[in-house]
Amino acid sequence: MTTPNFRTTRRVEFADTDMAGIVHFANFFRWMESAEVEFLRSLGLSVAMTADGLKLGLPRVSASCDFMLPARFGDLLDVSVTLEKVGRRSVSYLFDFHKDTEHLARGRISAVCCRVEDNRKLEAIEIPLSIREILQRASSVSS
Amino acid sequence: MTTPNFRTTRRVEFADTDMAGIVHFANFFRWMESAEVEFLRSLGLSVAMTADGLKLGLPRVSASCDFMLPARFGDLLDVSVTLEKVGRRSVSYLFDFHKDTEHLARGRISAVCCRVEDNRKLEAIEIPLSIREILQRASSVSS
Amino acid sequence: MTTPNFRTTRRVEFADTDMAGIVHFANFFRWMESAEVEFLRSLGLSVAMTADGLKLGLPRVSASCDFMLPARFGDLLDVSVTLEKVGRRSVSYLFDFHKDTEHLARGRISAVCCRVEDNRKLEAIEIPLSIREILQRASSVSS
Amino acid sequence: MTTPNFRTTRRVEFADTDMAGIVHFANFFRWMESAEVEFLRSLGLSVAMTADGLKLGLPRVSASCDFMLPARFGDLLDVSVTLEKVGRRSVSYLFDFHKDTEHLARGRISAVCCRVEDNRKLEAIEIPLSIREILQRASSVSS
Repeated sequence: MTTPNFRTTRRVEFADTDMAGIVHFANFFRWMESAEVEFLRSLGLSVAMTADGLKLGLPRVSASCDFMLPARFGDLLDVSVTLEKVGRRSVSYLFDFHKDTEHLARGRISAVCCRVEDNRKLEAIEIPLSIREILQRASSVSS
Repeated sequence: MTTPNFRTTRRVEFADTDMAGIVHFANFFRWMESAEVEFLRSLGLSVAMTADGLKLGLPRVSASCDFMLPARFGDLLDVSVTLEKVGRRSVSYLFDFHKDTEHLARGRISAVCCRVEDNRKLEAIEIPLSIREILQRASSVSS
Repeated sequence: MTTPNFRTTRRVEFADTDMAGIVHFANFFRWMESAEVEFLRSLGLSVAMTADGLKLGLPRVSASCDFMLPARFGDLLDVSVTLEKVGRRSVSYLFDFHKDTEHLARGRISAVCCRVEDNRKLEAIEIPLSIREILQRASSVSS
Repeated sequence: MTTPNFRTTRRVEFADTDMAGIVHFANFFRWMESAEVEFLRSLGLSVAMTADGLKLGLPRVSASCDFMLPARFGDLLDVSVTLEKVGRRSVSYLFDFHKDTEHLARGRISAVCCRVEDNRKLEAIEIPLSIREILQRASSVSS
């Protein structure tokens, strides 16, 4: 059982709902990324950063989510982020969404480090060591 | 190797892109659902239907996607839908996104049949037999 | 020159951007509504409320926005809400988006009070007096 | 009374709806842009194009919409595009949304021609003559 590396909150907005009266499931994927960005920002990092003179991005290679209970308009959700794996080229996160004590959803995102060229081509590269060390330190501190 | 049960196309819109110059990954989940809806419509069904006097919905219990290659503004994507499983209470689909011969992404969605009450509570129920038979027939025809 | 009735902030998320590298304009409309909801919540109200035993909604009848300067990923925006008019059946708001001292955008939304029936029909009705008084008081206090 | 310069259709998707059971108003702005893109494509143009060696964009300077009747899940909407004005630096469109004979919404978008530099700065420039002539010809043909 690991301890999350980061926690934030998210208020469900009216536009997040659908005609079933609950949050449309695709929004959880936006929310995962947003929590990841907040987590990275707390470490001085970003999903769109420059390191060693290169423009870097973290495009997603996989994303998944299990939905246990619906979220509804106005709900204040607790979102926790756990670093699952910091690899040479990729990073994986686990996300948990709670409303009070109810566990609404759990998702995963894996992203690869890419060099973003001016022509918008994406080329997978190793995560720069300076960044990998920050992620690994964050991971070990709280696990 | 199964044959898809349904095929449609989708044009990538400007609003689907993000600052990395590619489609934001969360849109693939909207697109999967949209292809599912088209597939169900082709069978005379819907994700929001009435059967045996009950209002039914198909809330998602899990969704996942692997992203192999990015999609870009203006791309015309081929989207195929394959019924993976038609259970007593749930249904699972597989979705493949191609641009010409390139396989961009593959995703899965599982949904459970729910009764939608006026107070917006969701209660899982068995898929009405009339609907399950339509899905099973569609599944066997093309597999 | 009026003083805003409410202020909040909004962090630009990655998914809000488009391939031009700036926030996609349609997001400002979601953000206006979200600021309106926060404003109403601060008054004990909502865009989806119950009063006098009726389920009420505030569907939009018009929305507009002028875009002076682009917003970008990571920007922390100041959003101010000003009640322009509280009518018998409708309410109008003015929204201003600033980044530091830069005025990025100004928008307007007009909404009508509607009774939401179980069959999802919308019927325009007068804003219940108890709600109108709260809005008028909020309006006069800060103007 | 002008005749539209372009017509297309749009099917309302499940994710376009909100908990009021109708299309969330912000989607009409995405749909306007999408219809504009289709119109421009029909002329051999785009909202993200290259001309005279410059990368050009058409960021929006204003957008508005009046909502007369709600659109609902599954509706097949007729969307018409009318060029209102082709200026030296800007272009304005009028959009009408119909469902059968019902006029659901009417919107306007004004955009300015901008040079998109590699650093993502946007600089307003004159619409290249070759493009302006195409737009003016399209405008006069059908008005």
